[in-house]
Amino acid sequence: MTLVNDSPEPLRFASALTWNEEGLIPAIVQDAENGEVLMLAWMDERALRDTLATGQTHFYSRSRRTHWHKGETSGHVQHVESISLDCDGDVLLIKARQIGGACHEGYRSCFFRGLGDGGRIDVIADPVFDSALVYGSSQRTDPATPDHGSGSAEEITRTIVRGSRTDLPRSRLEE
Amino acid sequence: MTLVNDSPEPLRFASALTWNEEGLIPAIVQDAENGEVLMLAWMDERALRDTLATGQTHFYSRSRRTHWHKGETSGHVQHVESISLDCDGDVLLIKARQIGGACHEGYRSCFFRGLGDGGRIDVIADPVFDSALVYGSSQRTDPATPDHGSGSAEEITRTIVRGSRTDLPRSRLEE
Repeated sequence: MTLVNDSPEPLRFASALTWNEEGLIPAIVQDAENGEVLMLAWMDERALRDTLATGQTHFYSRSRRTHWHKGETSGHVQHVESISLDCDGDVLLIKARQIGGACHEGYRSCFFRGLGDGGRIDVIADPVFDSALVYGSSQRTDPATPDHGSGSAEEITRTIVRGSRTDLPRSRLEE
Repeated sequence: MTLVNDSPEPLRFASALTWNEEGLIPAIVQDAENGEVLMLAWMDERALRDTLATGQTHFYSRSRRTHWHKGETSGHVQHVESISLDCDGDVLLIKARQIGGACHEGYRSCFFRGLGDGGRIDVIADPVFDSALVYGSSQRTDPATPDHGSGSAEEITRTIVRGSRTDLPRSRLEE
């Protein structure tokens, strides 16, 4: 990717973006091979700079208030193929080659649940890896889920995604 | 789409989502036919309910603090094929059949600008309609752009997108 260099030019790109009041911008990651939308995460300027410098996605975790290199724990990195921005300059679209799966729950895409008949939420994909193995099964019994959405979404997911859901604390996981 | 009904069931889906502190959730719209990512906009519960009830996307404009039906002005509506949610339940992915173009600047996708060599921002798509004709050329001379990102992103775009950029006030446009 010719975007990856350490010249001052990437700064020009960063300055062309509209960052929100927290200095962040949402980045959609799309599978460069088949067009599947894999995830959405947030970047600050440093995450964007690291992404441009390394050619692999980096993000900023709003819940953990820290930077993270996607795949640092799992090895499931995303090799950036291209970056585009929307008409308002306030959303990024990153096409990337995904190694393994994007989702910490073991799926290729984070969008593995779909709205079905009658408002039901169905799992619409098969897992591509065992998240307990990748992220460590010892964490499965940890009851703390401080950063992972609580409430009905979790409960519904827990009911539906039997055997594939990890009750991992978000603070130890990638977003 | 079997999701579209006026039963109370969609409320169950809404309650399964993680809304941000403003009661909003980002919704990625993807072309159901070719997988192209078309746009990202925000929904509140009413916008989601309207989307489910009509089968066409509705959003909430943060800048104008109002609801909008995508395509109401342009006719470029989005017919919803499916809705999925990510692992955190805080992002929606909507696959839709796009009529015309999603972008108010005349492009099929809002992501019509890409990061090129040396940090340059290039237009990477051809317009599919004349935004001045669709939204009204009389607005082209209106200098007010209160809601459209100002600053360098705009300036760079203005330099590059010759002839295709409309200086329309965002307050009169879809987001």
